[in-house]
Amino acid sequence: MKKKVIVAIADGIGDLPVKDLGHLTPLEYADTPNLDRIAKEGITGMMDPISPGIPVGTDMGHLVLFGNDHHLYPGRGPIEAAGEQMDIQYGDIAFRCNFATRIEGNIVKDRRAGRIRKGTNELAQVLNGTVIEDVTVMFKEATEHRAVLVLRGEGLSANVSDTDPKAPNDGHPFKLAQPTDDTPEAEKTARILNKVLEVAYERFKEHPVNIEREENGELPANFIITRGAGQMTDFKKITEELKFNGAVVAGESTVLGMAKLSGMTPISNERFTGNMDTDIILKADMALKALEENDIVYVHLKVPDIQGHDKKPLKKAEAIERFDQMVGHLLNHIDEMTYIALVADHSTPCSIGEHSGDPVPIAIAGYNMRRDKNEQYNETDCSMGGLGRISGHDFVWTLLDLLERVPKQGN
Amino acid sequence: MKKKVIVAIADGIGDLPVKDLGHLTPLEYADTPNLDRIAKEGITGMMDPISPGIPVGTDMGHLVLFGNDHHLYPGRGPIEAAGEQMDIQYGDIAFRCNFATRIEGNIVKDRRAGRIRKGTNELAQVLNGTVIEDVTVMFKEATEHRAVLVLRGEGLSANVSDTDPKAPNDGHPFKLAQPTDDTPEAEKTARILNKVLEVAYERFKEHPVNIEREENGELPANFIITRGAGQMTDFKKITEELKFNGAVVAGESTVLGMAKLSGMTPISNERFTGNMDTDIILKADMALKALEENDIVYVHLKVPDIQGHDKKPLKKAEAIERFDQMVGHLLNHIDEMTYIALVADHSTPCSIGEHSGDPVPIAIAGYNMRRDKNEQYNETDCSMGGLGRISGHDFVWTLLDLLERVPKQGN
Repeated sequence: MKKKVIVAIADGIGDLPVKDLGHLTPLEYADTPNLDRIAKEGITGMMDPISPGIPVGTDMGHLVLFGNDHHLYPGRGPIEAAGEQMDIQYGDIAFRCNFATRIEGNIVKDRRAGRIRKGTNELAQVLNGTVIEDVTVMFKEATEHRAVLVLRGEGLSANVSDTDPKAPNDGHPFKLAQPTDDTPEAEKTARILNKVLEVAYERFKEHPVNIEREENGELPANFIITRGAGQMTDFKKITEELKFNGAVVAGESTVLGMAKLSGMTPISNERFTGNMDTDIILKADMALKALEENDIVYVHLKVPDIQGHDKKPLKKAEAIERFDQMVGHLLNHIDEMTYIALVADHSTPCSIGEHSGDPVPIAIAGYNMRRDKNEQYNETDCSMGGLGRISGHDFVWTLLDLLERVPKQGN
Repeated sequence: MKKKVIVAIADGIGDLPVKDLGHLTPLEYADTPNLDRIAKEGITGMMDPISPGIPVGTDMGHLVLFGNDHHLYPGRGPIEAAGEQMDIQYGDIAFRCNFATRIEGNIVKDRRAGRIRKGTNELAQVLNGTVIEDVTVMFKEATEHRAVLVLRGEGLSANVSDTDPKAPNDGHPFKLAQPTDDTPEAEKTARILNKVLEVAYERFKEHPVNIEREENGELPANFIITRGAGQMTDFKKITEELKFNGAVVAGESTVLGMAKLSGMTPISNERFTGNMDTDIILKADMALKALEENDIVYVHLKVPDIQGHDKKPLKKAEAIERFDQMVGHLLNHIDEMTYIALVADHSTPCSIGEHSGDPVPIAIAGYNMRRDKNEQYNETDCSMGGLGRISGHDFVWTLLDLLERVPKQGN
């Protein structure tokens, strides 16, 4: 048998004491026999995704958990592109987009094109693959009225302004993209982007999807507006560098996209809903299956974070119990050479309803793992655990060292 | 009396729970009253030589323990040169060498020159000190068929290929050194190195040592082959920077060489064997003696690491008990102003037989040192100690601050 690692991620599990829970955190309040078993049989600690007091987003949290240096964060555009499983490469410029309704006078009548839900794939196809000057345009629809635009070519820059008017109400003109520095790269990118918008308008406005929409009294999706320009960074895939296989089982596109960027196999299923009804047993089973082909498998549960944002500590405790059940299913099916680790991407305290810079509890158990004297997986007990307080990078390197994948420094 | 520090290094002492030892580590299993006394009377913690999950070699581990930034690691050649107590300086290019037997057609008939053991000093002397162009050649024999070559001069580079054919069997031609980048420095170094090899061949082939070998039916050591080129880095000796005297008592040449590079006095004795029979009382006495002239004295015991590599947990526990006895002798003879610290260069778990990235337990006791509630020196108890989990650099600075050698930042 080969050493393997399974990492269970409870999104946003970290919290603060809640008065209504008797001054316990949701994790302390919840009944979590399986999480506590890992704490008892293994070693625990606290993890700061980047460093103490720095809150991170789900994208950044997973970027770090999947082994990347946090300085490689490429901005929203490339992350959305990755989340849509687009083939984004080092140097590409990516934008978050909306399908929109444009009328005369360059006015955006509706920033969401009547909240279009159908036909965006057909529209995207007539823009995707276009070449403008020496730049290739990739364009893909996302959920509802959203889409992603990627520009690939020499001499491009992310330093261009948003074309999205982002006004509180509709009826404002879209903005021409402007370079935000005086480099030729920014000037070129703004010029190309403005041409892309005109090409989209030309091709979308007479498109059968829009003719049909107008016949049905719906607003046409005859335009796109862009925001969040980012240039894809040079992800050195540690899977290639340290020669191992990884997979990520998740429902959330951002997490799956980050997996792909990190050189890991994204695995999903339509029964992963992001809500309390997500199929945790299917998730665990798919993770166990992935373990056959991979050295490390991450399995992600979104719902604790949702309840943190919704400021519902009791619901969060319930979500954590679902996480515990998922982990229990894993524990019942892994072999003795498989380590199991518990972690989160960040804390989402119910009292704040947002991510905070509080560290998250971590625990690792398995084949001849060191132990500490802590017997519970929560914010209080793990803060006195034997792993100490480490960074997200250090946590990942600790796991990869268990797999004997980290090269020795010196001789 | 002056504040002093003695640091006892148990090479590779860190380990993982061992089933045959009742799931204890060798250190937990061993009877170590003296180590535990230090834990009880002082403060404990865990140390990562570089950072969590990064395994290090003995050379790198000691480079850090002797106060150097790990980025200064100069590669194998310079470390071998230092281990042979050669005067290696910033910018020098050093190579590991073998004496070899060369025959016609540039063939290396034997990569180890018939495993020559005698006469290498005489051979080395006819090459050492040679000047080629503006480059001075230093050459020194090491154990058995091994040697070290150092090139000193302007405009040299370590980016040259190995001349050692390193084939699984003998009878292959040696390789001409080639620059591995297109700088004039690499080109010059390759040219000089090839000349050194020819000069060696010219001078060695008619040397009395080889004439005698051939008369005895032995293969002549008429050539050298090189590998592991490295350029000496800029060791800022903290002994000079922070104005203190240090010494290192050890048997292993790598540790002694690293001491010298770090500006500390290497102290050794032929009764330091690296094995279980090494003279621990002599080692302790020589350390105590060195304490008279130095502010900090390191005393190193190799044998726990050896037993870790050999995957022998019971023997490793025995080696640790030897370490405990050595420390007991120190405790019995130091004065009240001398601090004593316990540390290791890295963990060498018996279950792996190699260095791992697991942190090592540390403890410091002495004159009005802070305490924690831990009473035992081992991987589990120290992980909850009051020093927390710190890097090798931070550990050394903690010791130097005890000596009041660390300059105040700000005012």
